[in-house]
Amino acid sequence: MLYEGAILLVEDDPNDIELTLNAFDRHHLANHVTVVRDGEEALDYLFRRGEYADRDGQPNPQLILLDLKLPKVDGIEVLREIREHESTRTIPVVALTSSRDTRDVESAYDLGVNSYIPKPVEFDEFIKAAGQLGLYWLILNEPPST
Amino acid sequence: MLYEGAILLVEDDPNDIELTLNAFDRHHLANHVTVVRDGEEALDYLFRRGEYADRDGQPNPQLILLDLKLPKVDGIEVLREIREHESTRTIPVVALTSSRDTRDVESAYDLGVNSYIPKPVEFDEFIKAAGQLGLYWLILNEPPST
Repeated sequence: MLYEGAILLVEDDPNDIELTLNAFDRHHLANHVTVVRDGEEALDYLFRRGEYADRDGQPNPQLILLDLKLPKVDGIEVLREIREHESTRTIPVVALTSSRDTRDVESAYDLGVNSYIPKPVEFDEFIKAAGQLGLYWLILNEPPST
Repeated sequence: MLYEGAILLVEDDPNDIELTLNAFDRHHLANHVTVVRDGEEALDYLFRRGEYADRDGQPNPQLILLDLKLPKVDGIEVLREIREHESTRTIPVVALTSSRDTRDVESAYDLGVNSYIPKPVEFDEFIKAAGQLGLYWLILNEPPST
């Protein structure tokens, strides 16, 4: 069962946000997405701090889509904190990033990323990949209990 | 780039093996699958022991599809050993299982499974899920270096 906030999209590029929401919209997933625009905001959201203190009692996202190149706190550090905290450590995290740097790939897997998807450069390919990704994680995958 | 053995299917049910290979065949992935039929054989394959001692120097699988209810060594224990050993700990592991027991789901995520897919009961749904899963992990996902 999907709810508002089932997907947390952590992305600073407005163009990529629009593309991802567009892809999800085609599969009726867009209503379930919350967008945060830097690593600090992602951590505040997940740990219910600052402007997200009122999220207390709301479930964890079923999927975190994490860009790695983020302002304030970078994606690798966000991933590390997610995996270190008991309340968030089993949430599926998919790195969706323009980096194909093998160091980023290895760091992400070392820290327990669930999957690593390089952002396709072409519009059509991006839409297709984001759609496949959304369907896989939201429909096919059985998440841990929130 | 896919190679023989890119996918390790750990499954004891001959019917489910056939269904999975059938689904992969439709997406031209079947040539890349190695099948092992119990948990001990899976560990021998991955750690290049016993009848698989001659795998030395061959790459790790790009994906392990792991049934949880297995003879000899069960799937949860196989997952634990995969995650404990340096040479295998970042290999993507997807639990593909008929168990929807929440304890199995939680144990699998606790041990760092990448994804948990309940086996669909209907033939068509099984074929569709196995196909989506194969495409997602073999085409879309960027694996760690082998």
